Amino acid sequence: MSAPGENLRINGDRLWDTIHEMAQIGPGVAGGNNRQTVTDEDGEGRKLFQKWCEDAGMTMGVDQMGTMFMRREGTDPDALPVYVGSHLDTQPTGGRYDGVLGVLAGLELVRTLNDMDIKTKHPIVVTNWTNEEGTRFAPAMLASGVFAGMHTQDWAYDREDAEGKKFGDELARIGWKGDEKVGDREMKAFFELHIEQGPILEAEGIDIGVVTHGQGLSWTQITLTGKDAHTGSTPMPMRKNAGLGMARILELVDEIAWSHKPDAVGAAGHIDVYPNSRNVIPGKVVFTIDFRTPKLDVLRDMEARLEAGAKKICDEMGLGLEMETVGGFDPVEFDENCVKAVRDAAERLGYSHRNIVSGAGHDACWINRVAPTAMVMCPCVDGLSHNEAEEISKEWSTAGAEVLFHAVVETAEIVG
Amino acid sequence: MSAPGENLRINGDRLWDTIHEMAQIGPGVAGGNNRQTVTDEDGEGRKLFQKWCEDAGMTMGVDQMGTMFMRREGTDPDALPVYVGSHLDTQPTGGRYDGVLGVLAGLELVRTLNDMDIKTKHPIVVTNWTNEEGTRFAPAMLASGVFAGMHTQDWAYDREDAEGKKFGDELARIGWKGDEKVGDREMKAFFELHIEQGPILEAEGIDIGVVTHGQGLSWTQITLTGKDAHTGSTPMPMRKNAGLGMARILELVDEIAWSHKPDAVGAAGHIDVYPNSRNVIPGKVVFTIDFRTPKLDVLRDMEARLEAGAKKICDEMGLGLEMETVGGFDPVEFDENCVKAVRDAAERLGYSHRNIVSGAGHDACWINRVAPTAMVMCPCVDGLSHNEAEEISKEWSTAGAEVLFHAVVETAEIVG
Repeated sequence: MSAPGENLRINGDRLWDTIHEMAQIGPGVAGGNNRQTVTDEDGEGRKLFQKWCEDAGMTMGVDQMGTMFMRREGTDPDALPVYVGSHLDTQPTGGRYDGVLGVLAGLELVRTLNDMDIKTKHPIVVTNWTNEEGTRFAPAMLASGVFAGMHTQDWAYDREDAEGKKFGDELARIGWKGDEKVGDREMKAFFELHIEQGPILEAEGIDIGVVTHGQGLSWTQITLTGKDAHTGSTPMPMRKNAGLGMARILELVDEIAWSHKPDAVGAAGHIDVYPNSRNVIPGKVVFTIDFRTPKLDVLRDMEARLEAGAKKICDEMGLGLEMETVGGFDPVEFDENCVKAVRDAAERLGYSHRNIVSGAGHDACWINRVAPTAMVMCPCVDGLSHNEAEEISKEWSTAGAEVLFHAVVETAEIVG
Repeated sequence: MSAPGENLRINGDRLWDTIHEMAQIGPGVAGGNNRQTVTDEDGEGRKLFQKWCEDAGMTMGVDQMGTMFMRREGTDPDALPVYVGSHLDTQPTGGRYDGVLGVLAGLELVRTLNDMDIKTKHPIVVTNWTNEEGTRFAPAMLASGVFAGMHTQDWAYDREDAEGKKFGDELARIGWKGDEKVGDREMKAFFELHIEQGPILEAEGIDIGVVTHGQGLSWTQITLTGKDAHTGSTPMPMRKNAGLGMARILELVDEIAWSHKPDAVGAAGHIDVYPNSRNVIPGKVVFTIDFRTPKLDVLRDMEARLEAGAKKICDEMGLGLEMETVGGFDPVEFDENCVKAVRDAAERLGYSHRNIVSGAGHDACWINRVAPTAMVMCPCVDGLSHNEAEEISKEWSTAGAEVLFHAVVETAEIVG
């Protein structure tokens, strides 16, 4: 029997302390972290993680994108490794858990295996993907994207930060540009534990999210062109009010998202009104619609209905309409067996659980294209993330790490 | 008979040339003017106007707000003067006609009376009100507001521009702080010719707007408070989307304005969304509703329905709502006899005309509180104003000035 017994548990206190020791590097201004990718602080965090892993008997590989692969050997040298991990980089005003939990839970599961002297047939590789956040160098999930063949490495190296520094140069500067060819690793599976970054698990009082899908995303930037005119002296029938057109499209977006409940969300977070003066009817509004859903047909339906509906609204109001796709990826369906391993682990350990869809992007979403992949989620307070006030409880992190542990070691096959 | 005959006409070419000579002072960057109030350019424009008036035999009075009163004597020294005028100051990127037309048409009508050696019983006083635009020193219509008792003079003197300079200091610096007590003049009537600053007259091909009312205005700044949340990971039922609340209130504002057609307008020109990021549901939106109508009961009804409707929308959506009145004045009903004098003049001269409501504020709106007042409007291209591209035709300015001339001299009573 390869599945671990329900009495096999990780050390939740040790994981919690490890997380907060990492948080000492690149502290934020309000209790969180500013440890952005390929900064000196990122380098310092990497060194600490390397030391912890080597102390646990692991050996390091680093690829040309700087991703760290910390390997615990298996009994069968030819067996494909089971990968586990996430990212150590943070937002400029980020929390202590986003990404970090998933990497250090990987370390904790190796430490637990060591404590109990458990061997697995397959090697286990704990991974720290470079530049998941994408804040300093867009886009997000940069290294896992190169790994999965979504971007070329040269293109990734050329990404520039706000000061014009290139990603590749900064990676070399901090000393973490490895020799290993990116994507040159075959995986038996990849598991990622992450905080939910949404409010569902906490609101429902559920310990574990079994992530079945990653949402697809469609970003459409809309430019409406009306006519700047005096708010006082322009009669209602002679107005071309781009602001009112925007309002009608926002209502349409809401209707479209609700029509696919509970499988879709939609909103506009970005809205710029011109000339934005109290006594001038807006002659132009630029805003971006964000649609997400785990279902490809729903994504395409929402896009089509937005296009048709916006056109109708603008035709009726005499407004010019431009629509530009400024972001998008198709929904991700995680591997059936990996997802089952996560669900079985939660069940076996007695944690309440539910299927959940990842609303945000994660490294696992790219790796799913090249290896069987699944994710585990734990609750976070108020769904808050990308914020120094991001918070989780020790119990939540312990439960998440235990489910990750069981799914990984079951997949890696306990020996003897 | 005191009304002038229909063959009595002003010199449209001379008026046109005078307007464009004034436009040489404080030129803009795109063919218009930047002759903001109490700047050196304003001082230069005042001196030119003073010279023209004195060449036409007029004598000057200047009050403590810098308003210029250029008097052509009447045959009866005790008869109340008839006042006519507007303002010579412009927006920073203003046109050549907004205000200027009304002042220089007053000069032209005196020149015409001189040409024809016509005497009037009542003196005629051509007025240049200081700081109508209010761009450099808010609020607009500052000097006419002090004249009408809306503001105290000390308060007006303390208004500051963006550099922290005070209105009173700048008025003294350019040498135009007069001795005369503000508001210390009794008027038989006040007439103001102004470009429409709206699209109605041009669209309908009508020469003259007989201004019966000035619209009342109500500005309500609304702050909606929802909850910043991730656009991907926050389910629709758990959102508090302040942007969507704003959209619903904009639709409500449109409905309210249309329900009073054709007597009301409503829109929001100013909308600020926070944090204004593509992947964050807006947690806060601040925007300003602009309602205008010539009817006081309609203004109060629109305000009440906005308040009740916004509250209902926010209650349903779980949004916080703050509403603050940030501007407002009651509708103006111009003097029946003065309005009739304008309408009769247009009729007598054979110009097409219609009643019209002034959508914007004008000095005449304040003066109407202390003297019988009316306004004449002429078309402007595309309703465009507060823009260097503001344009009118010589024919339109001639027609407007002739109607003004007839209304003024009828009221001033031709002698002999």
